[in-house]
Amino acid sequence: MNRLSLNIDNVKPFVSADALQGLQAEVTRLHNLLESGQGLGNDYLGWLHLPSKIEAAEIQAVEAAAQSIRSQCDALISIGIGGSYLGARAAITFCNPLLRGAGGNGPDIYYAGHNLSGDYLADLLDVIRNKRVCLNVISKSGTTTEPAVAFRILKEALEQQVGVEEARRRIVATTDEKQGALKQLADAEGYQTFVIPDDIGGRYSVLTPVGLLPIAVAGIDIRKLLQGGQEAEHAATQSARLDENPAYLYAAVRHLLYKQDKTTEVMACFHPALQYVAEWWKQLTGESEGKEQRGLFPASVEYTTDLHSMGQWMQEGQRTIFETFLLVAQSNRDVSIPQFADDLDGLNYLAGKGLDYVNDKAYRGTAAAHLEGGVPNLSLTLQDRTPETLGQMFYFFERAVALSGYLLGVNPFDQPGVEFYKKNMFQLLNKPGTEKR
Amino acid sequence: MNRLSLNIDNVKPFVSADALQGLQAEVTRLHNLLESGQGLGNDYLGWLHLPSKIEAAEIQAVEAAAQSIRSQCDALISIGIGGSYLGARAAITFCNPLLRGAGGNGPDIYYAGHNLSGDYLADLLDVIRNKRVCLNVISKSGTTTEPAVAFRILKEALEQQVGVEEARRRIVATTDEKQGALKQLADAEGYQTFVIPDDIGGRYSVLTPVGLLPIAVAGIDIRKLLQGGQEAEHAATQSARLDENPAYLYAAVRHLLYKQDKTTEVMACFHPALQYVAEWWKQLTGESEGKEQRGLFPASVEYTTDLHSMGQWMQEGQRTIFETFLLVAQSNRDVSIPQFADDLDGLNYLAGKGLDYVNDKAYRGTAAAHLEGGVPNLSLTLQDRTPETLGQMFYFFERAVALSGYLLGVNPFDQPGVEFYKKNMFQLLNKPGTEKR
Repeated sequence: MNRLSLNIDNVKPFVSADALQGLQAEVTRLHNLLESGQGLGNDYLGWLHLPSKIEAAEIQAVEAAAQSIRSQCDALISIGIGGSYLGARAAITFCNPLLRGAGGNGPDIYYAGHNLSGDYLADLLDVIRNKRVCLNVISKSGTTTEPAVAFRILKEALEQQVGVEEARRRIVATTDEKQGALKQLADAEGYQTFVIPDDIGGRYSVLTPVGLLPIAVAGIDIRKLLQGGQEAEHAATQSARLDENPAYLYAAVRHLLYKQDKTTEVMACFHPALQYVAEWWKQLTGESEGKEQRGLFPASVEYTTDLHSMGQWMQEGQRTIFETFLLVAQSNRDVSIPQFADDLDGLNYLAGKGLDYVNDKAYRGTAAAHLEGGVPNLSLTLQDRTPETLGQMFYFFERAVALSGYLLGVNPFDQPGVEFYKKNMFQLLNKPGTEKR
Repeated sequence: MNRLSLNIDNVKPFVSADALQGLQAEVTRLHNLLESGQGLGNDYLGWLHLPSKIEAAEIQAVEAAAQSIRSQCDALISIGIGGSYLGARAAITFCNPLLRGAGGNGPDIYYAGHNLSGDYLADLLDVIRNKRVCLNVISKSGTTTEPAVAFRILKEALEQQVGVEEARRRIVATTDEKQGALKQLADAEGYQTFVIPDDIGGRYSVLTPVGLLPIAVAGIDIRKLLQGGQEAEHAATQSARLDENPAYLYAAVRHLLYKQDKTTEVMACFHPALQYVAEWWKQLTGESEGKEQRGLFPASVEYTTDLHSMGQWMQEGQRTIFETFLLVAQSNRDVSIPQFADDLDGLNYLAGKGLDYVNDKAYRGTAAAHLEGGVPNLSLTLQDRTPETLGQMFYFFERAVALSGYLLGVNPFDQPGVEFYKKNMFQLLNKPGTEKR
C-alpha cells in the first residue's frame, strides 16, 4: 500500500526523461551495492532492513516500558541530541496535536540535552516542578556533552524531588548494549535499558528504541509506524527501476539538479505538523552528503507562512535552488470558512470550504509560480497524519539519501566533520586529556 | 549605549581591510541617499527615524489597550502573517520564558492567520475553549487570505462564546488609517483600532503598533524596546563610516562575500530564544534583497543542537556559504553543572560551571573550526535578553538590510514577487474577478 506520492512534473523542464534514463544503470549498480553490503560505510547498514527484522520481543519491551511511563508520569523528558532527538520529535509533532492542551493523551513530552542554554533548562525545571516526571536519556556513549550535562542536572533534580530509589524507577536509558559511560551508570543504578544497535547511525535510528520509546510514550502506535516502514522497505527493495522506486527517483532527480549547479534544496512544508520532519530531513541529508566539499545545502520553509517572508526570494532571488514540497493530503480535522452577511473582506466565495481546500490551491499556485520563476520543484504528498504514513516517509528518505550519497561518491553513513568543533571546545574547556594547540 | 557587538575577525581571510575601505565611498553615498530620501523605494522610509519620532500618545494608547487586554483575558490571539506576525513573535520569544508555564506573566499569546492548516486552527479552538480570549487582528487591507480566513473563524467562535457585544470589546484591529476591509469592519463594529503607517512595509513594522501591541500584552516594556531602537537609530545616523557604524560594516562584509559567489548566509543562533529572531531576519533580508535574481539566500540554524545535524555540512560541505553567529552574552538564568562522585561521564571537570560558560566555548570552538573548514564567519553578540537590547538589534538589522539592498542595486522596500502565487491561487479558487489563464 502506497501512502506517499511523488510528483516530478515541475522538474521536467530541467531534468529530461533521457537524463533520468541515463542514470538508471548507475542507480541499479548502487542499489545492488547497497543490498549486498559492499558499498561505502557498509558497517552502518542496520537500518536497511530494520523494519522487517526488528524483533517482536523488542517491540513488546518498548511498549511495556512506554505503558509504565504513561501510568507513572505526567511528563517525559527525552534527553538527547541530533539523531537521538530529531526522529522522536519529528514523529510526535507529526502525529499529535499541534498545540499543547489540544486534547493530547498521556504525558507531556519535553526535550532536553539538545542545547546548552541555561535559560532553557531553568525554564524546564520550573515547568516540571509540580509534575510526576520520567526521564529517557538517549546516548550511545553517555559522554556527548549536551545530553550528559542535561542528564546530570535533571537526574539530580529528580532525585531531590522523589528520592534516589524512586528516581531509579523513573529513568530509562537508551544506550550501547555493552559499554560506555551511560551503560555503566545504568547497570550500577539499575535503570531499565534499551539498545542502540552498533550498525545504525543516529540519523537512521528513528525506528530503533532511540525513537520508538518516546514516540510510544506520546501515545503513538509504534507497530503502525513500523508497518509503514516495512511497506516502504519492501517497495524499495523489490526494484531499482526509477519508474518503480520513488525513493530512487527522488534521489536521481535531486542528483541531476545538483549536477546543474543547484546548491540548495529547500524543503517547503505545507503543514505545520511537518516542522520537525524538516529538521530530521536536514540532518539526514546534510550529515550524509555534506562532505568533501560536496552535497546540496538542505534548507526548509513552512508555507504558506513563509510565502509572506521567503516567498519573494523564492520567486525572484538567485536561481541556485530547487524546491521539494512536502504535503499532507488530509488533515486530521478540517475547519470550514463561515459565510458573513456583510462580506467586507470579500471571502464569501470561500464560504463552506475547508482550510485544506484553500491550502491545496495555495500549493498548486505556488508550484506553478515558482516554476515560472525558474525554480524546479517536486512534491511528495503524505496521504494523512497517521503513523503508517510517517513510517513510510521515514524509510523513503533514508533509502533515498543512502542512494544519493552513493551517487555523489561519498560515504552516507559517517560524519567525520562533526568532531572538529568538539575538539576545539574541549581544549577551550580544559578537558583533561586535551591540549591547547 | 551599545548593547550589541560585531566581530568580523573570522572574515578577514576573505574580506580584506582594503576591500572594505574600497567600499566606503559607496556606502557613504548610499547612506546619504537613504537619509535624504532620494533612493529606491523612498516612499517606504517611515521606519528610518521611527524610534525617535513615534508619538508619546501612540505609545500610551498601545499600553492602555495592552493593559485592558491583560486584565480582561487569559489568552491573546494575534492574527497576522509575514510582517504582521514575525516581529511580535520574535520579540515575545526573545524576552519571555522559553517554555509555556515557566513563570510567564499575563495572558498566553497564540498566533493565527499565519497558515492555512485546518488542524492548527482546530487545535487552537480546542485550547481556547475555556479561556477568556481577546483577538488582535493585524492586516493593512483586511483581505490577505490567511489572516482574513482565520479572523472569520475566530470572530465567529468568540461571538458564540461571549456574545456579539462582548466580542466587540475583545477585538482590536491594527490596520490602515482610512481605508480597506478591516478598517471598514472595525468602524462598523466599533473595534478599537491602531494604525499601520502607509510608509512602513510589513517587515520593517515591528516598532509600530503592528508589533508593539502584542509585545506589550505579553508583558514586555515597549518603552525600553523603543529606547533600544532609538539608541541604534542615533548611532546609525551619526556616521556612515564602516569603523563607526557596525550595521553598515555588517552590510558591507556580507556584500563583499556575496560578490565572492557566496550564495547563502546562514544565521547560526546560539540561544533558543533567538528562534523567531532568525525567522524575522529571514523575511527582512530575503524579501528586501531577493529580486532580479540577486541576493543571498538567508537560512538559519540553532546551535549547538544543529551542530549535531547540520554541523557536518557546515564543516565539510560545499563552500558556498558564510555564517553569522547570533549570540546572547548573558542568559536570564544560568544553571550549574553538579559534581558527581562516580564521574562515569567524565564531566566533573565542568562541575560548578554554568551552561552559558560551556555554550560560549562551544561557540568559540565552532567559529574556529568552521573558519578552518573554509567558512567565513562573523558574530553579533547581544548583551542580554532585555527589550532594550532587542530594540537595538531590530534597528541594527533594518538599517543594515536597507543599505545592503542599495549596495545590491535593488529596491529593499518592495516585494513584487509575492503576488505571483497569489494570482495563481485566486484563479484556482475561482475568486470573483480572476480569470483562469
